[in-house]
Amino acid sequence: MMDDALEFIEQNVENAIEDLKEIVRIPSVAAKNEGLDETAELLRGKLDALGFDAKIHEITGAPVVTGFLDVGAKRTLMFYDHYDVQPAEPFDLWETPPFEPDIRDGRIYARGVADNKGDTISRIWALKAFIDTGTDLPVNIKCVFEGEEEIGSIHFPEFVEKNKGFMKADGGIWEFGGEGYDGVQEAWLGLKGIFYVQLEIDILTRDVHSSMGCVLPSAPQRLAEALSSLKDADQRIQIDGFYDGIKPLTEAEWNAIDKIDLREEDIKENYGIKEFLTGLTGRDFKEAYYNAPTCTICGLTSGYQGKGSMTVLPAKASAKIDFRLVEGMDPEDIKKKFRKHLDDQGFSDIKFLWYEGYPAGKTPVDNPFVDVVRRANAKVFDDLKVHPTSPGSGPLYIFQDYVPMVSIGVSDFDSKGHSPNESIKIENFRKGMLRLVHLIDEMGRW
Amino acid sequence: MMDDALEFIEQNVENAIEDLKEIVRIPSVAAKNEGLDETAELLRGKLDALGFDAKIHEITGAPVVTGFLDVGAKRTLMFYDHYDVQPAEPFDLWETPPFEPDIRDGRIYARGVADNKGDTISRIWALKAFIDTGTDLPVNIKCVFEGEEEIGSIHFPEFVEKNKGFMKADGGIWEFGGEGYDGVQEAWLGLKGIFYVQLEIDILTRDVHSSMGCVLPSAPQRLAEALSSLKDADQRIQIDGFYDGIKPLTEAEWNAIDKIDLREEDIKENYGIKEFLTGLTGRDFKEAYYNAPTCTICGLTSGYQGKGSMTVLPAKASAKIDFRLVEGMDPEDIKKKFRKHLDDQGFSDIKFLWYEGYPAGKTPVDNPFVDVVRRANAKVFDDLKVHPTSPGSGPLYIFQDYVPMVSIGVSDFDSKGHSPNESIKIENFRKGMLRLVHLIDEMGRW
Repeated sequence: MMDDALEFIEQNVENAIEDLKEIVRIPSVAAKNEGLDETAELLRGKLDALGFDAKIHEITGAPVVTGFLDVGAKRTLMFYDHYDVQPAEPFDLWETPPFEPDIRDGRIYARGVADNKGDTISRIWALKAFIDTGTDLPVNIKCVFEGEEEIGSIHFPEFVEKNKGFMKADGGIWEFGGEGYDGVQEAWLGLKGIFYVQLEIDILTRDVHSSMGCVLPSAPQRLAEALSSLKDADQRIQIDGFYDGIKPLTEAEWNAIDKIDLREEDIKENYGIKEFLTGLTGRDFKEAYYNAPTCTICGLTSGYQGKGSMTVLPAKASAKIDFRLVEGMDPEDIKKKFRKHLDDQGFSDIKFLWYEGYPAGKTPVDNPFVDVVRRANAKVFDDLKVHPTSPGSGPLYIFQDYVPMVSIGVSDFDSKGHSPNESIKIENFRKGMLRLVHLIDEMGRW
Repeated sequence: MMDDALEFIEQNVENAIEDLKEIVRIPSVAAKNEGLDETAELLRGKLDALGFDAKIHEITGAPVVTGFLDVGAKRTLMFYDHYDVQPAEPFDLWETPPFEPDIRDGRIYARGVADNKGDTISRIWALKAFIDTGTDLPVNIKCVFEGEEEIGSIHFPEFVEKNKGFMKADGGIWEFGGEGYDGVQEAWLGLKGIFYVQLEIDILTRDVHSSMGCVLPSAPQRLAEALSSLKDADQRIQIDGFYDGIKPLTEAEWNAIDKIDLREEDIKENYGIKEFLTGLTGRDFKEAYYNAPTCTICGLTSGYQGKGSMTVLPAKASAKIDFRLVEGMDPEDIKKKFRKHLDDQGFSDIKFLWYEGYPAGKTPVDNPFVDVVRRANAKVFDDLKVHPTSPGSGPLYIFQDYVPMVSIGVSDFDSKGHSPNESIKIENFRKGMLRLVHLIDEMGRW
């Protein structure tokens, strides 16, 4: 009967791709509040068609879609995905339009195909493989699809708070993952937290002819000076107390990490650089990757940005900044410390226009569910690298009290999540579905 | 006969406004290379219709329009104007569309109406007043209208080099000027020079998920640090040798300056600030205004600038910067010193994408043509403040060997040149035309 489910996947790769194309055509950009209800309804319908108790939960912000299929099994498996995507800007760098899926050289291109609509559809089709072939599901299934992951899952805790009972499961599959630099599959047991803030300084009533720069203050100059104050020459973040309370990597984590080759040379080649920041390499590089908090300027805006010259002293300047947080850091605390830093440096006129954030979260490396994932992976792929955490962020902390999460998925090193020309390999999409069928099977024997 | 010319102006204000509306409807933005040929041809036609020897000179870049009317007089008066305008961005701050002239509360609103199409049309109508009423012109007239003033008059020297004979005149009226904070007319005898440069840093092959900020270098962070290195806390520009060779204001200039009230409080109120940069006031404020070089960030661009958040580490960052230069400074020299500063500070990876510039220029305060302007002004307006130089820039240096230039015009303190909702007072447009008729008359008696 398991063979029927596996055979179903092999026979239906094209149909699953059509489903994926359908969902990536909707530009469900949470940052712009576009296409969210439509995508949520599409997913609810798919779960409903599989016989799930499928619901749309209206919360502040984008709705959460849940599905529950209770087969009376001992174990419950959860799938967490998000149906929102990053903005597709800059559009002109896309070879084909971001919301018109295109297949070339064995890959599907579209915004959200890797992060993480490809995963979502692969999970739905793994379930469909059991249900449509009449193969008994050996575990109960819970699906939770949110619509604000790309803007910090700001309202998801509100959902969890109201649905604590639903959140309980024996193991969960998180919203990303896939093939690394070297073609080896990767699983991620944790995610960094984040504090994202938009700074704005607005010191003149209007833009002025730049000749007045001789006597008037400059918003972009002050912003540059404030941003420059954030790091020293060694890239150490200069916010007072920023590193306080950070939990170092454990011995068990270092044991896992020491087995992993992060392929520094490949990363450098991929991004066209000769050296990492401050010349990081080896264990220092690994420590930064897995356990360093960051402070990154994601956007800068001021004055004239068109072609050629405009001689203007801009009234305003703005920056978007993200801080990646590791275990032991709290976004509210970082917000206060960052505010104090700006005030102490004389930049009280630089305002926080808005902000959002959440802490880091991790599943222990020795949780038995990690072995279930490892065994399922081995049925389809050669190997699996188990990372104690990703350098990326996600609201895994919310699940920490309810279910151990592991992140595996259908992306690969060239997937360009958050960048133009995002894509996945069709081959990984196919194998990813097969791995999930095995995962459900393996979990039934746990 | 002079009375006929003056009466002609009074009777034709509406017709002159229609001419002004016609020319501001053309979005002749030099930075975008739009509408330039069309505007040049329109002006050539107007001069031709007045009986001028009118020509379009094709040079590299936007064409130069000239007109010569030789009446065999002793003195020759020149009008220098530019038919290009600044970009109108940001469009959403305009109350009415920038290229659809609108009249409200006695003002005409449109991009370029103040800088300087209003002046251009007022000068053409002052000439028309003589010609259409059969009043003898007591001076020969030369008109020079260029189309790249707003992008640094980059090709205008090429025209001058080829037309040295045409450039000779006894006095010239420059392309801007008008009513100050206190309602008193102002004349400007000089203009600062400029060095405008676009910086770009491009250190990754593509935009990356910002989680990689833990190990990858940041283009916007490096740009902010480079920009921050440009000034110290006292706003002193830190480029080595930047202030070398600057010619201090002369005693004659200080004598003129001491008579001028720059109305510091009005400027502060207008821009919504409590203090000028470093608390400048009195003679220090005046010295900065008339003789300080500047370094002003006109634009900043990097990464995501849309709504909400995008977690991206941008591959590139860019800044537009203008330096206002005073007498004794050379743009080529400043370019080299700025490049050296960046290199010395470790920012050799920040490139000059393009740049342009020219030096400062001044007409001596005791030139007799200045008195001609003063006498003409007194026939129409109460008073005239004579500034040794403007804090703004223009290619006056090009004229310095050929003709003493004085800048008077139809703008006022609320004209918002280079900003949204640019406008002029219709009353100043009318009086400006009358003043020009008197100027021609006064110059005939010099």
